[in-house]
Amino acid sequence: MRILADNLIPMATGAAFLATGGGGDPRYARLAVQALLETTGPAEIMTLADLPDDSSVISVGMSGSPSVGIEKLPNGLEPLWAVRMLEDHLEIKADALISFEVGGGNSLIPFLAAARMGIPVLDADGMGRAFPEMQMETFSIYGVSGSPMAVVDEFGDGGVLTARDDVFGEKLLRNIGLAMGGECYCAQYVMTGEEAKRVSVAGSLTLAMRVGEQIIHHRGNLEAFLIALAETLAPTSYGQLQLLGQGKVVALDRQIVGGYDQGTVGIETFDGRGRLELLVKNEFLVAELAGERLCMVPDLICVIDVETLEPIPAERVRYGQRVAVLGIGAPGILTTEKALPVVGPRGFGFDYDFVPLG
Amino acid sequence: MRILADNLIPMATGAAFLATGGGGDPRYARLAVQALLETTGPAEIMTLADLPDDSSVISVGMSGSPSVGIEKLPNGLEPLWAVRMLEDHLEIKADALISFEVGGGNSLIPFLAAARMGIPVLDADGMGRAFPEMQMETFSIYGVSGSPMAVVDEFGDGGVLTARDDVFGEKLLRNIGLAMGGECYCAQYVMTGEEAKRVSVAGSLTLAMRVGEQIIHHRGNLEAFLIALAETLAPTSYGQLQLLGQGKVVALDRQIVGGYDQGTVGIETFDGRGRLELLVKNEFLVAELAGERLCMVPDLICVIDVETLEPIPAERVRYGQRVAVLGIGAPGILTTEKALPVVGPRGFGFDYDFVPLG
Repeated sequence: MRILADNLIPMATGAAFLATGGGGDPRYARLAVQALLETTGPAEIMTLADLPDDSSVISVGMSGSPSVGIEKLPNGLEPLWAVRMLEDHLEIKADALISFEVGGGNSLIPFLAAARMGIPVLDADGMGRAFPEMQMETFSIYGVSGSPMAVVDEFGDGGVLTARDDVFGEKLLRNIGLAMGGECYCAQYVMTGEEAKRVSVAGSLTLAMRVGEQIIHHRGNLEAFLIALAETLAPTSYGQLQLLGQGKVVALDRQIVGGYDQGTVGIETFDGRGRLELLVKNEFLVAELAGERLCMVPDLICVIDVETLEPIPAERVRYGQRVAVLGIGAPGILTTEKALPVVGPRGFGFDYDFVPLG
Repeated sequence: MRILADNLIPMATGAAFLATGGGGDPRYARLAVQALLETTGPAEIMTLADLPDDSSVISVGMSGSPSVGIEKLPNGLEPLWAVRMLEDHLEIKADALISFEVGGGNSLIPFLAAARMGIPVLDADGMGRAFPEMQMETFSIYGVSGSPMAVVDEFGDGGVLTARDDVFGEKLLRNIGLAMGGECYCAQYVMTGEEAKRVSVAGSLTLAMRVGEQIIHHRGNLEAFLIALAETLAPTSYGQLQLLGQGKVVALDRQIVGGYDQGTVGIETFDGRGRLELLVKNEFLVAELAGERLCMVPDLICVIDVETLEPIPAERVRYGQRVAVLGIGAPGILTTEKALPVVGPRGFGFDYDFVPLG
């Protein structure tokens, strides 16, 4: 399908929703892609089914602290530079690009390179939401290596690096990003079309667009939005939708630690059930109500404004905001025996097993 | 000249002396080169005069915290890997290698690659002593770029990176080294033979060997050593030699901060002149006696055991050691108008101008 500048607002809105608080605010990426499409004409989204098995696919996106991304603006060419650097290193040409994660700015960043290269972005991603570390990519979990990776900043600093595994690759990338001011751009996960079909979350970009359209359409009517969202999610690989609570933000603890946003958000529920507490590491990871765990990674915890329905990234949560907290069952690819040790609670250092929502 | 395993002990001893406390303990590099030369046969040191102007020269060495290097041993192949990676990236072949710095382990590390490659190491280096940061290379000061640089660790992790300038290159390299456990190996400063002659400190490896021979020869006789050393330095570009003081180490403050060893050493002088204080950032940077500055970077401050004359690296200074502290005027290439802002006191954050020794 062809993506016009007009499609980008719903897509960015849905991507912010699916980001579960992380992934970086898509506003800047959206503005940059909009401006670019006015020059290049429409971009193209390709479904996985249309992708030839022998194609070359490269994933590209931003790595770093989302709250740094609010003040340290990219020049817009970084994704192209990173992809070209990796292509040159491997002496290949990419036939399509794919997002690291549908959540946040990284959903749109591949368009900044793809539109200039005249190739499509796949309707798929490597997380089906947002996660803070690269070994949490479904690409990585199901056997595609994150090395070699091309890393760049807005000055063109950087190069192509190889790491012994993706856990070390993440450490290397994070430290380079810190040197580069807290964020950097990276092209990696070179795979064939056949691999892309096997290791990615299908349909996630168009899902983001539909969710965004519903948010925009149902502004001011949380109930109607929840009904429409449940219907949209039903035929996908995502699980059930549940309203975890509504309330007012009354406590906020947020720091940048080692290149990540970390902290907690406390929400006093309107219905007197007590305090809903969200644990954050770039994303909302666990929702607890009065000490009881309601929802945990890899299930999605999405925070929206009760009135505007606008998704709220973790770094933009403010004292006094009135929010609704939704839980959504993770796509099946994230809850397998292979995926859970990496993207389940223990992958984030919590000392308990994954219990699915509901 | 041909370097046999037997030449390495004096060379490593002299390199430890010229390191002014930094550069990493040369013991491990010396043992690794000794073991290698038993397989490959003698290594070759080439004087700058014998180097054709159109040769390709590459510099290679270790970057990181010297005190990490004591416990995190290399596998010995890192320098070769780094040089090969840079050669492949640029599609060139190095005709000779050159040390980052004559001080410490980095004096010998190029032999680990050169002996395997069958090419010589130049009798020269990029510091004439040791310094903690790459923009302090004479290569960098006089216009050879530190980019591209090939960075590797003992697992073969790494790659080739480019930085906008050497100050940022240092930051990038230091952060990558931190991800790699506190140290990494790097090949960089690709230059022609003509450039190498213009931007490096000539004769430093053979100077290290002569100084080491004198230390070994005069053990137990500080006075005789000082006379011999003054004679050795006289015809070189180094300045005058001065005994700054003898005393006992009575205070020690040492931390690893951001990948550097930082701290101070307090020495109670035997002659009752008060406390000699040495300020450390990997190297001994400033020597003060009772608040008066006696010697400062880029002049050399060398600490040796009063009896054995063995040079003492900053990370091995211990409470109760009886030491002599020597000052040596820096080579002329380090005290020019171009060099002093980088390697003089202000380059290290001190708020005063360079005052030469004596």
